[in-house]
Amino acid sequence: MRVRRKPGAFEALCEIEPYFVKNPELRKGNWKEVFGNDNPIHAEFGGGKGRFSVEMARMYPNVNFIMADAVTEVALVAAKRMKKAALNNVRLILLDLKNVEDVFSEGELDQIYLNFSDPWPKKRHYKRRLTYRDFLMSYKAVLKSEGWIHFKTDNRSLFQFSLNEFAALDMKMQHISLNLHDESPEGNVMTEYEEKFSKMGHPIYRVETQFRK
Amino acid sequence: MRVRRKPGAFEALCEIEPYFVKNPELRKGNWKEVFGNDNPIHAEFGGGKGRFSVEMARMYPNVNFIMADAVTEVALVAAKRMKKAALNNVRLILLDLKNVEDVFSEGELDQIYLNFSDPWPKKRHYKRRLTYRDFLMSYKAVLKSEGWIHFKTDNRSLFQFSLNEFAALDMKMQHISLNLHDESPEGNVMTEYEEKFSKMGHPIYRVETQFRK
Ligand SMILES: C[S@@+](CC[C@H](N)C(=O)[O-])C[C@H]1O[C@@H](n2cnc3c(N)ncnc32)[C@H](O)[C@@H]1O
Ligand SMILES: C[S@@+](CC[C@H](N)C(=O)[O-])C[C@H]1O[C@@H](n2cnc3c(N)ncnc32)[C@H](O)[C@@H]1O
Repeated sequence: MRVRRKPGAFEALCEIEPYFVKNPELRKGNWKEVFGNDNPIHAEFGGGKGRFSVEMARMYPNVNFIMADAVTEVALVAAKRMKKAALNNVRLILLDLKNVEDVFSEGELDQIYLNFSDPWPKKRHYKRRLTYRDFLMSYKAVLKSEGWIHFKTDNRSLFQFSLNEFAALDMKMQHISLNLHDESPEGNVMTEYEEKFSKMGHPIYRVETQFRK
Repeated sequence: MRVRRKPGAFEALCEIEPYFVKNPELRKGNWKEVFGNDNPIHAEFGGGKGRFSVEMARMYPNVNFIMADAVTEVALVAAKRMKKAALNNVRLILLDLKNVEDVFSEGELDQIYLNFSDPWPKKRHYKRRLTYRDFLMSYKAVLKSEGWIHFKTDNRSLFQFSLNEFAALDMKMQHISLNLHDESPEGNVMTEYEEKFSKMGHPIYRVETQFRK
């Protein structure tokens, strides 16, 4: 999924400073300076319209959040939301996640969130799923070794695929849920897709996973 | 779950020789002699009316199967089925699985199957679930270190609980399925409960899990 810099939307994004970070590759290794503090950095990959990252940033003022997405138009919605929220601990980047290592250095991220990633239901497209092992290995390269990847989805097939990918890479797992909203989990921040699909009665699946040392 | 030797049924069972093994504690460490060969030994824990073990025994003549259950009346149905099938590689025992170490010695089992184990849905009963960690640790004591525990169920809460127990014990997992019948898996042998619940449209969950060395 190449980043498509749709002209109008891209220019509009560039004006939403300081929330939109235009050349994230230049920040590699010095994201702490972007935020001006030493707080941990959490990233949301494929954040869409930004609700999750903004709400998390509001809830955790001592954590810095970076939301990444490849699509200019949805990112523009997220940027506007960030501006409106006027928080100093959330930023947005345009990024095709297969290039995650161009933007973050080793261990620069403390936690990673993947929410309702595109399921790519066709078998031949499995390498595009954001929990495919090659993606996971690139996340590993930028995540602290104690860091967790927090994954939720309403898509059963994607969840099954993902559990098997984590297991194949011999990753640890915890807090596995096959019906998150059944348990009314404390502190769960809903994403746009989560709200939509849980209202439709879909169970929401969740897991946290971590690489072994 | 104590073994209740319901009088009539227990006597009837004792007559179904050699399928019903009356004093399994006496066989601890020498199950190979019961079968008269060195073939691997697979056990089904909580096998109910025995369809799975009998069909597996038919399909894999070079594997010996031991089915265990705590309830005399269902075991009697299983014993009759074994007699009818007239296979020499399947046996039945009455056993409360919390005493599994009284009946098998270290590494005596090559594989373990848990099919549609009672879900014990009440929170306070979680220690009775056959995938509760204390049960798992006793299975570990009798299972070869390369042996897998094969678990399937239609019960989402039990499956979720079980995945978290496996993860908490840092067990390996493979072949995780959240809808087994979707994939029409080759060589899947259905149990009584599986037939019933999959016909009702319940997804069937499956996983294989193994202890780390
Ligand atoms: C189904 S949406 C979910 C959005 C949001 N996380 C939610 O839960 O509401 C998936 C998002 O992931 C983004 N995405 C998919 N593949 C990507 C990739 N390779 N790189 C960056 N973003 C990607 C899409 O652009 C889309 O915005
Ligand atoms: C729901 S039935 C499933 C039967 C069969 N496996 C099937 O799939 O059709 C569960 C079985 O596990 C047995 N069981 C439950 N707890 C047990 C225990 N602690 N020890 C031995 N058997 C047990 C019950 O007696 C029952 O026959």
